[in-house]
Amino acid sequence: MNISHIEHIGIAVPSLDEAIPFYENILGFKCFAIEEVADQKVRTAFFQVGQTKIELLEGTAEDSAISKFIANNGGRGGIQHVAFAVEDGVANALAEAEGKGCRLIDKAPRKGAEGLNIAFLHPKSTVGTLVELCEDPKKCGC
Amino acid sequence: MNISHIEHIGIAVPSLDEAIPFYENILGFKCFAIEEVADQKVRTAFFQVGQTKIELLEGTAEDSAISKFIANNGGRGGIQHVAFAVEDGVANALAEAEGKGCRLIDKAPRKGAEGLNIAFLHPKSTVGTLVELCEDPKKCGC
Repeated sequence: MNISHIEHIGIAVPSLDEAIPFYENILGFKCFAIEEVADQKVRTAFFQVGQTKIELLEGTAEDSAISKFIANNGGRGGIQHVAFAVEDGVANALAEAEGKGCRLIDKAPRKGAEGLNIAFLHPKSTVGTLVELCEDPKKCGC
Repeated sequence: MNISHIEHIGIAVPSLDEAIPFYENILGFKCFAIEEVADQKVRTAFFQVGQTKIELLEGTAEDSAISKFIANNGGRGGIQHVAFAVEDGVANALAEAEGKGCRLIDKAPRKGAEGLNIAFLHPKSTVGTLVELCEDPKKCGC
């Protein structure tokens, strides 16, 4: 597959309101969007850092993946996933990965934050790290 | 502080030999360096992805931070830290962060992999995420 860059890293936090001041006041970034993704039960806050975004994620329900990640991490936040921008389409990338024996969480692309087409590989096949593949439909025309 | 981009993300893995094939064969990256950092008790493998490197980290002793991270994560790997490239010097960035009430792990820069000057902020002040600041002494002349 053809990956151009890290589109974003996803950081789980117990509270956006608590976390945003660290990224703005200490690191000097500017939050440019806050968005709720209802089907993933998260609220997200975005910062641009060079080519890559920081996506802070706050769970909006106890059964959201983010709330479970924080519960399993002793109530603390941490880096939950890394998302790679693919240039040849998420569907093609999934087919290639599966053809090489990689397990998938998503068999087909679905909509994520910012309108991206996204899909996750299964951590059983990625040596533990939650890996997202994504593409911007405005750029790829898909 | 003036951060230009994400220099690398550090991913803990139980074994470099087990992890490298996923990054090369499935994601299509090329490992360009393997290095042991004795004082951090790790072996590292590097991949370039756009502006950012992936740094895989394997602990070389049970008391290394990486081995402890994996033990606390049920024996699985995961994303252990994010490293931001600062343009105005790590020492200046540390002083600024501390002046704003941020706790530090490293009071002064020290040497990390690839000859970078590095320092870590304390997760108590970063909403749980282990944050590294770094600079390339070949580029900044420091």
